[in-house]
Amino acid sequence: MEKLFRDHIEKIVAITDDEFKYIMSHFSLMNFKKRDFLIREGEPVKYVFWVVSGLLKLDYQDASGRQHVVAFAMEDWWEGDYHAFFNQSFATMSLQALENTQVLSMTLHDYNALCRNFPKMTYFFLEKANRGHISSQQRILELISTNAKERYDKLLQRYPILFQRVPHTLIASYLGVTRETLSRLTAQ
Amino acid sequence: MEKLFRDHIEKIVAITDDEFKYIMSHFSLMNFKKRDFLIREGEPVKYVFWVVSGLLKLDYQDASGRQHVVAFAMEDWWEGDYHAFFNQSFATMSLQALENTQVLSMTLHDYNALCRNFPKMTYFFLEKANRGHISSQQRILELISTNAKERYDKLLQRYPILFQRVPHTLIASYLGVTRETLSRLTAQ
Repeated sequence: MEKLFRDHIEKIVAITDDEFKYIMSHFSLMNFKKRDFLIREGEPVKYVFWVVSGLLKLDYQDASGRQHVVAFAMEDWWEGDYHAFFNQSFATMSLQALENTQVLSMTLHDYNALCRNFPKMTYFFLEKANRGHISSQQRILELISTNAKERYDKLLQRYPILFQRVPHTLIASYLGVTRETLSRLTAQ
Repeated sequence: MEKLFRDHIEKIVAITDDEFKYIMSHFSLMNFKKRDFLIREGEPVKYVFWVVSGLLKLDYQDASGRQHVVAFAMEDWWEGDYHAFFNQSFATMSLQALENTQVLSMTLHDYNALCRNFPKMTYFFLEKANRGHISSQQRILELISTNAKERYDKLLQRYPILFQRVPHTLIASYLGVTRETLSRLTAQ
């Protein structure tokens, strides 16, 4: 696990063994069983997570009680309710394990300490934040300009593995269509 | 203008006069007339922008030629095609002035130099990137879980000034509805 995380960091900044040890002291390893919640809507958000192994879904319940999948997160991805995390407020979304999942978790206190004391990690987080911002911008583009079939094709092309690991009802929710519409798209 | 920009930075990090001068040396002041393009789809993206005065729209043309407004940017906002900027590739979106507009512009070279040499600005950009990422996540939530009327009410409540400065056809496009649907919502 440590090697995976170090590789993940070193894709952006080179670090020494001691620096890696120092970085790791800001994280905790946590294990969740399938269906466990890492974040529950309405509760305080203490952590952001980096997925060591397993699969998570981030979802949002609208005023009428309908669930919408906002994102999936697999190995090597960061996930969290960033609004609630950075504002130390209550979750507006839920983060749930779809498989037994192991994560590294970090509190805002540790995030700030790491940024304050170690500019390399500030730069690392800046890169991650910029990429996160970019992929959100791309998702917005897709939501406003493509239809469900186009979104389905793109998701399949980008993350074929998702279609083997995630129930199709959840993929339909992520694409903003019903399970029946997804079946029609899959059959084509 | 310099005071506005310094205030903007000092909301996040305190800086000295000399540090501000150093920061400013990484930016250029540019003026655009109403309808000028700051970024054109298909062309290389050299800059990100901070709006001193005026108003911009970021839009995206889909495969069928339909324009979609992705974002507006007013005084004190950053805007750009971040994907193309950070990857030094070609614009997939266009950025156009809706009013005579003055901006501070920065190249990726200057962005990287500033981050490398001045950790305070790395932290400043990290804060901005995190906030940008958060507002994109919120916009995704709204797009998948609210209807046009709810999005209209929220936009009006958050940025009433937009409704005076932006043609309603563009607001309709931002909300993902036709001009006629927007008129019905406005009349209610």
